[in-house]
Formats: sequence, structure tokens, C-alpha cells
Amino acid sequence: MTQGFSFEVQATDGAARKGEITTPRGVIRTPAFMPVGTAATVKAMFVEDVRAAGADILLGNVYHLMLRPGAERIARLGGLHHFMRWPYPILTDSGGFQVMSLAKLRKLNEDGVTFQSHIDGSKHVLTPERSMEIQALLGSDIQMQFDECVRLPCSDAEAERAMRLSLRWAERSRKAFDSARGQAVFGIVQGGAVKSLRIESARALSEMDFHGLAIGGLAVGEPQEVMLEMLETVMPYLPANKPHYLMGVGTPDDIVKAVARGVDMFDCVMPTRAGRHGLAYTRFGKINLMNARHAEDSSPLDPESSCPAARNYSRAYLHHLFKAGEILGMMLLTQINVAYYQELMAGLRAAIEAKRLADFIIQTSEAWARGSQSGD
Amino acid sequence: MTQGFSFEVQATDGAARKGEITTPRGVIRTPAFMPVGTAATVKAMFVEDVRAAGADILLGNVYHLMLRPGAERIARLGGLHHFMRWPYPILTDSGGFQVMSLAKLRKLNEDGVTFQSHIDGSKHVLTPERSMEIQALLGSDIQMQFDECVRLPCSDAEAERAMRLSLRWAERSRKAFDSARGQAVFGIVQGGAVKSLRIESARALSEMDFHGLAIGGLAVGEPQEVMLEMLETVMPYLPANKPHYLMGVGTPDDIVKAVARGVDMFDCVMPTRAGRHGLAYTRFGKINLMNARHAEDSSPLDPESSCPAARNYSRAYLHHLFKAGEILGMMLLTQINVAYYQELMAGLRAAIEAKRLADFIIQTSEAWARGSQSGD
Ligand SMILES: [Zn+2]
Ligand SMILES: [Zn+2]
Repeated sequence: MTQGFSFEVQATDGAARKGEITTPRGVIRTPAFMPVGTAATVKAMFVEDVRAAGADILLGNVYHLMLRPGAERIARLGGLHHFMRWPYPILTDSGGFQVMSLAKLRKLNEDGVTFQSHIDGSKHVLTPERSMEIQALLGSDIQMQFDECVRLPCSDAEAERAMRLSLRWAERSRKAFDSARGQAVFGIVQGGAVKSLRIESARALSEMDFHGLAIGGLAVGEPQEVMLEMLETVMPYLPANKPHYLMGVGTPDDIVKAVARGVDMFDCVMPTRAGRHGLAYTRFGKINLMNARHAEDSSPLDPESSCPAARNYSRAYLHHLFKAGEILGMMLLTQINVAYYQELMAGLRAAIEAKRLADFIIQTSEAWARGSQSGD
Repeated sequence: MTQGFSFEVQATDGAARKGEITTPRGVIRTPAFMPVGTAATVKAMFVEDVRAAGADILLGNVYHLMLRPGAERIARLGGLHHFMRWPYPILTDSGGFQVMSLAKLRKLNEDGVTFQSHIDGSKHVLTPERSMEIQALLGSDIQMQFDECVRLPCSDAEAERAMRLSLRWAERSRKAFDSARGQAVFGIVQGGAVKSLRIESARALSEMDFHGLAIGGLAVGEPQEVMLEMLETVMPYLPANKPHYLMGVGTPDDIVKAVARGVDMFDCVMPTRAGRHGLAYTRFGKINLMNARHAEDSSPLDPESSCPAARNYSRAYLHHLFKAGEILGMMLLTQINVAYYQELMAGLRAAIEAKRLADFIIQTSEAWARGSQSGD
């Protein structure tokens, strides 16, 4: 293990774990939700407010950053932390997922992927070795192996081919990881919706010397039951002493169910993206502020929120800002959603510690279903 | 005079004045720059940050607010201050200028203007009486008379017709102003670029019982010399014991020259609009952050700015945010520009107090022309 990175499980409740990842840039309290800072910014949020909302760690995207402003450029400018003024831990993805979903004219072979930038059509290559190099240039605290993620549903043969390729890339990624330039590297379990493939992937990755294991290729369009079934299938094969990261997940409901099944880390664009589109995540469930019912509602989104924006501004004002297309609406609601996700994680951690996670999940889900007094 | 509103000139330097407007919602240090909060938000800025930047007063737009969310609705929600959480003074324009520049199918007669909303095509009427009622519903601290503003250049006859109509509307506005529902109402000098008309307008308005006098219909496309010539023409006819407000102005250079000619108040969308388009106003002049020369410039916009965003973020980072179309770029640069405008006003006030305004203007203009070390 690399010096400086460690993980400790401090409490359990059933399969759920509460713990801490320690890194030289700070502690990550788990279960943790990582706001997504795609292009070196959590969209529409000051980085100080991301911290104030309770985030211990951000996610950065290799695909976006390699294209703009470029990994070498960020390195020359002092690394991603300095560039965006976030001195706390950053996890970077490997670029694999977004090459598949965003880039044009992809050509995949054993070595890696050649593709055209969706921004300017320029040609680029990502291999396991180049992905690890980029993550090191960015100064990532937790690096991810380069993998191939297939869209669900897909044929079993396709899932198997991609899973085996990802295993070979896992070995190359682990080998290319430079412990002098990074704290930790995680492997990624693939295998589509095929249990036997997921198990094979989890087993093989567990034998490699990764600092944590991620489950990839879920939350890509499949029903929640499939995601949970795959989680339950994989979890017994993941080392208990390493963090478990469910990539790209998800809704608050996805998160509580995955935590109950032993997941320690999450990331998703949902709170930030929803915040830019007038959709609030709250203790009372989702609230669409574009809805005309809020036009004269002087109540705040949540008078007991830890987030001042949720306590202080009326729903009527937020409704007005979104109707008028005002940037301030996006700023306030992004902050509110990021804060709610962090509150939810804090609640989950406290519930695990108190061994009352089941009750917490029932109460939380009931509150979402009940909605707020305003009738949402 | 309405109780609660007063103006005091505390120092002069040539024609320039340093003073204070006192209102029940707080003191306005003059010369003052009012950030524009068109639709109940200073675009892309948290209202706390507007205050922290040094603003004593905001401007709100009757035209936008009457259309969305509606003046009666804002009144039901507790007034504009409560709605947008700005407890300090607000000046509202009368809607006249923006009906002319934004609305569709305008029909103007002696009574007022009938027009269609640029948002949804709905039909509306603005008269002096309705404008004053809307401003009272909003809870405006300083209300503006309803006027007709013509675009420059225009024929002398057209300027004269509009000026005389605006004078008749001034009388009706003053009469409709309800001192129980507002602190102050200002008249607006019109007359295009015709000196004799400007003088006639200023004289007539000075005899009405307004709490301040504005100069309207400038900064509408004419050269700066015309604006300054009109200012010099009008100023001797404005009561010295009342605030002088130059509407819709302007660049930092416009502002320092107008202050030297006796103007006390300004508003303009320039700092906020420029901030959303990658253009910074600084002690070193205008800096276009879209320019590729900033791509690897690790220096901040101004290490000595009062604005943390100007001190802490590299030009390279700001450049990246604008190239990537990130909202955070707009947020940071709007804050930087609003703060610079407020710093400039503070500098002007201190210079007037010290009777060294001429030196201050020379030094400030030289610094703009010199640019920063980064070569802008
Ligand atoms: Zn997601
Ligand atoms: Zn202007």
C-alpha cells in the first residue's frame, strides 16, 4: 500500500459500513458522496460552498480535463487542486466511461481507445498507461483504472469481452500507477448484468493490489432492481478492508439502498444537474420549482436545512428565478442539492454508528414520499 | 420632503461632490454606483456578495418586474427587498426606458404607453400613475418619474416633443407619488442632444418638488463628448442640495468624468454583463479573459483587490472557465467587476474628500492605459 492512504471501518450495521479514508489531503468520511467537478469546477458553485456543504472529496473527469485545458497544462499550473482552489482530496475517473458516452469516432483495440474530441474534433488516444499518466499530472489523490464500460442492455458476449479487456487494462493500470505521484488506485468491477461475469471480475481484481474497488457499468439505464442485484452479487467478493465505490450513482434512494449493501463511496451529477434545471432534492423528496404552484409560496424549501439557501429563500423566489432563466436560481439550487446529499450521507453515517440504519432508511423514505406541507 | 430621506454634501472638489443620502433602509455613500438587479437579482451574484463588494443600493427594473413575477405578486410576497433578500436601499426605474427598448408593438399617447410583453406577448399599459403605483408595490426607496426616452441621434423636433411630454408626465408622477408608500421620487431631465431643451427640462423639473434629479436619455449610443457636453450644460440648472443621478452610465472612464462634473449616482449593466462575457474591469483596464494569452498565466487579476476572487484565482483558471462555458466563470468575474466598480467609487469619494480628484483621475486613467504586468 502507498504510504499516506488508509481505510478504516469504524462501525457496521448489517452489510453497511461507516468508516474513514485517510489521505495526505484530508479525511474522507464514508459513506461519502463526491460532488462532480467535471471541468475543474462543480458547476455553478463556489468551491468554498462545496466544502461548507460538507463534501470531503470531489470527482474530476479525465476525459474533459485532458481535452480542455489539458493535463500537461494543469500540471504546469500547479495541479488540479491548486488550479481550482480545492485543497482537499480529489478522485479522478479514468476517462473510459466518458470516451464511450461523449467522444466521436471511437476506435477501440487491445491497446486502448482512439477518439475525436466532442469539442473540436481533435484526435486523441487513451490507454491504461496514458490515463494513469494524466491522473498523475492532475495530482489526483485516488486514481481509477482505465476500463471499458458497455451500455446496458448488451449481449452476454459483449459484456464478457469488455469485462476481460477491462481486467487486462486493470493489470496495466496498476502497473502504470506511480506511487510517487499518487496515493491510491482503484480497480473497477465490470461484467454488465451477468452475475457470473461480475463475480469473475470482482475475484480477479481483489487479487490485484488495488487500494479500493469500484463497481462500474451500473446506473447506465437499467432498472434499480438490476443495479441492486448486481451489488448483492459482487459485494461478497470484494475485500472488506478496502473501500467500495459505486460509480455514477445516483438518486438519494439508490444511495441509501446501496449503503445498506456495503457501498462506501458514490458520485453523481444528479444534485448539480438537477439544481441547474429547477429540481430540488430535499428531506421532503424532489420538488420541481418550475411548477406554478410555487409562484406565491413564501415558505422556504426546508426551514431546518443546514444550507442557508434552503432556509432563507422562498419557493416563490426560486420559482421566479427559474422562470426568468436567472443564473442565481441555478446557483442557489445547486448549493441546496449538494448540501442535501451531504446531509443524507451524514445521516447515514450516524445511523450506521447507532446501528439503526434500517429505521433511518424507513423514516427517510417515508419523509420523501410524504412530501412537504406545501403539497409537493 | 418626505420624512426619512435626506441628502448631505459633505465635501466638494471643483464640481465634484462627496456626500450621503440617508434613507430608512440605510445610508448611500455618494458618488454611488448602483449594481443593476433587473429581475430581482444582480445576475450571477449572491446578494450577500453584492453587499460585501461595497454596494449601498441596487437598481430594480419596473418593466421586467411588472411582467414577471408581477408587482402585485411581489407586494403579496412582502415587497422586493424581502423577496430578493436585500434589506438595503433600492432605486427603481419607471419602466419608460425599457418599454422603448424591449417591448413590442408600442403605442404612445398623452396618457401613457400600451405595449406587448417581450416575454409572452401579453398586453400591458404604463402611465405615470401606474408606474408610481408599481414602484410603491415593489417597496422602492427611490422612485423615478415615468418618462419618454428617445434614442440618439434624433431630430430636434422629436427630442422636444418627448421632453415636453416627459415634463407633463413628471408633474403627474410627482402627484401620484404617495409619500406614505415611498421615501423619495426623482425627476428625469430629457431633451436629447439639444442644449436649450436640456436647460428647459432641468429648469422646469427643479421647480417641482422632487427629492433628486436624474439625467436621462444619455449613454444611448452617442459619443462620450456629447454626453459630457450635455452634463456640463445641465448641471448648473440642477439644485445643488439634491442628488444628481446620471442614468445608465457607464464605463469606468464615463463615471470618473461625470463625477468630476457633479454627478452623485450611477447605474449600469456593464460590470455584470461584461462579467458574464469574460471581460474584466480592473485597475489595469479591461482584460478579455477569452484571450489565449491568459491560458497559462498563473497570476491573479489583481493581487491587491478587495475582492477575493480577483486575488485568489489565476487568469489561466478564469480563461479556462470561460472557454469551457462554465457558470463559475460568470460568477467569479461578475463579483470581480462589481467589486472593482465599488472600489472605484470609494476611491473617488476619498479623492474628493482629500481635494485631489484631478490627481486621482489622472493616476487612475494612466493605470488603465498602462495595463497589467501580464501585458493586457
Ligand atoms: Zn449519476
Ligand atoms: Zn449602461
